Amino acid sequence: MDDILIKNVLLFNKKANVLIRGKRFCSVSAPADAQARQVIDGEGMAILPPFYNTHCHAAMTLLRGYADDMPLHKWLTEYIWPFEQKLTAADIREGSRLAVREMIKTGTVFFSDMYFDIEETAAVVQEYGMRAALGVTFMESHSKSQQQDKLNQLRNWVDPTGGRITLTVAPHAIYTVGADMLQLCSRTARDLGLKLHIHVSETSKEVEDCRREHGTTPVRYLDKLGVLGPEVVAAHAVHIDEEEADILAARGVTLAHCPCSNLKLASGTFPYKRALAAGCHVTLGTDGVSSNNNLDMREEMKFAALLAKGASGDPQTMPAHEALDIATRNGSEAFGIDAGVIAEGKLADAILIRLDVESMQPLHHLISNWVYAADSGIVDTVICDGRILMQNREFTKA
Amino acid sequence: MDDILIKNVLLFNKKANVLIRGKRFCSVSAPADAQARQVIDGEGMAILPPFYNTHCHAAMTLLRGYADDMPLHKWLTEYIWPFEQKLTAADIREGSRLAVREMIKTGTVFFSDMYFDIEETAAVVQEYGMRAALGVTFMESHSKSQQQDKLNQLRNWVDPTGGRITLTVAPHAIYTVGADMLQLCSRTARDLGLKLHIHVSETSKEVEDCRREHGTTPVRYLDKLGVLGPEVVAAHAVHIDEEEADILAARGVTLAHCPCSNLKLASGTFPYKRALAAGCHVTLGTDGVSSNNNLDMREEMKFAALLAKGASGDPQTMPAHEALDIATRNGSEAFGIDAGVIAEGKLADAILIRLDVESMQPLHHLISNWVYAADSGIVDTVICDGRILMQNREFTKA
Repeated sequence: MDDILIKNVLLFNKKANVLIRGKRFCSVSAPADAQARQVIDGEGMAILPPFYNTHCHAAMTLLRGYADDMPLHKWLTEYIWPFEQKLTAADIREGSRLAVREMIKTGTVFFSDMYFDIEETAAVVQEYGMRAALGVTFMESHSKSQQQDKLNQLRNWVDPTGGRITLTVAPHAIYTVGADMLQLCSRTARDLGLKLHIHVSETSKEVEDCRREHGTTPVRYLDKLGVLGPEVVAAHAVHIDEEEADILAARGVTLAHCPCSNLKLASGTFPYKRALAAGCHVTLGTDGVSSNNNLDMREEMKFAALLAKGASGDPQTMPAHEALDIATRNGSEAFGIDAGVIAEGKLADAILIRLDVESMQPLHHLISNWVYAADSGIVDTVICDGRILMQNREFTKA
Repeated sequence: MDDILIKNVLLFNKKANVLIRGKRFCSVSAPADAQARQVIDGEGMAILPPFYNTHCHAAMTLLRGYADDMPLHKWLTEYIWPFEQKLTAADIREGSRLAVREMIKTGTVFFSDMYFDIEETAAVVQEYGMRAALGVTFMESHSKSQQQDKLNQLRNWVDPTGGRITLTVAPHAIYTVGADMLQLCSRTARDLGLKLHIHVSETSKEVEDCRREHGTTPVRYLDKLGVLGPEVVAAHAVHIDEEEADILAARGVTLAHCPCSNLKLASGTFPYKRALAAGCHVTLGTDGVSSNNNLDMREEMKFAALLAKGASGDPQTMPAHEALDIATRNGSEAFGIDAGVIAEGKLADAILIRLDVESMQPLHHLISNWVYAADSGIVDTVICDGRILMQNREFTKA
């Protein structure tokens, strides 16, 4: 007998019965009388791929609304950093818990994180049944023994979930990590087959400082160091010229676009059309809550799509289906998760959204309504790796 | 005995008991044992001013997702206009009903509309207990007898709600209404003490065409015609230079900023910082659903605030409390509604939002969380003119 049957659910343009066996979809066109241990009535709902959030600092959810509407330097030095210095491991667990709950509530099953005390975040991810790629953060300011501990952590990691949690090597940025450590991180990621997660060209200050210190721009600098490759996930990439977009595409780098954070901190505007034309692999992230101020990928999709149109002056830029792909399958692909689409054989990650709400009516175009009109409160059910994490907006964990 | 008592609700930074008598707040610091016909338990909720949406085409909710991601001319001529030509009065009533329901669900109690068959929209507004300023639309293409009918409608209007619905004189735009009719509309509005609602400088094409045809820009052209005054609500005002901002401020014109629509149609970016510096009266609108694609003013606030920061390059632009004011009290003031703030003596318009949700935690800053982090699904209760329109997300109308 199969594990989960979702009956009469809207899949693309027609009603379907979707069967899940173990961790995977085994049929998206099952007969109505198929048998399964759990049956979900999908009437009045649509099944869609869930979100894969490729740039996050989960525990910073504790800083929601703590400091807004101020210049970047003041924000960091007078508010964020002093707050963070006081955080205990228990705080990080509570911040991660709040983040994980918010993500599941808003339809996200995976996030790529960069923070500290990652075992705390891992425990919560395991508890709630999500996926994550947790960054082991490297900064030049850490002691040699801290750095060695981090390398050991990366080498000795055993995923307690049997497939849902990976680690990433996460040198924070070129302005906090020197050339030698960047190259050590790169070698480590390649040796261990892990992703390398780094902030790149987030602000014009970063670019100016890089020019002054290294005589070139951040992307070119990283490329000269040999760091750029298909394992790299570059968060932001706001300030990149055409040649840099070409370099990022040629090296197979994944870009984590974070439109809300870039707007809120006035960091600049990601050149989506340029990145797309160059063939870059674009994914979507919320960044931390302290600069967003939520982890709501539905809202992030709308910001991405509307900003891309506004910035390019072309309303055809990033149509709804492309925004959905960026927020779902592109992120899944980037992290080697065999999911992100509702299709037979794929890992069973999915959300069910309610259609019987005003913002989804009339239903001329499901994807348009989801990207442009809905809010994430219509996410009814979240399934990850063949397990129901939320149903009828209630968490199912024990 | 008073009519409504809201107990233990968060008002600004402290718990309060709020009393409503008739249409007005009579106390925001009542004793806990105050008596009232209806008692609402406000525990776990905050009371906030509701939204006043100053530019809308309610019935166009029927076109949600009907045509997206295409050039403006194709969108209008191949999709929107042909669709609209087929609309019957019954369709307009259904579109207005969907809009009114969506607006109440998302915490809006007032909208300034511009469309056709306004008696259909008025009937739904009356039925659901909202407020509205319904625009009697003038276009050069209408026949003389249609125009006369519209003038008669304006002169003979009797508000069936006894205070919640007004009409506005709504010449569509300078490119669809000639100089004589613009001046007739202006005189009519002033004679009848009504607002004049018009699209102004929405696109660069409008500005270029105006320069070619009238030798000047739209704001200067309207000012030369003597049309600009404190009764004017100018939707969009995207393409305005510094002098035009000064003219709009000097004439007391209200601007209806519509960030989502402007981005989605790639119309341009409203120069918020310039308008603010000039002293313009800025309010917020969603525009029609066909270019948004919802009527969610909470989302619109976040777009307004983040776009203002991104466009100005300054994260201090439009802080959270300012975004809330623009979306609430500024709109209320513009339309002469003695509401928009929760204070004794003011008309009792309010929303109660739930605080026991992930996106509102931690509660370092209520307004920041509401503007930047929440979604409108946390609106639990909507009160307008001293009447409860929605409670526990259920409409209360018979």
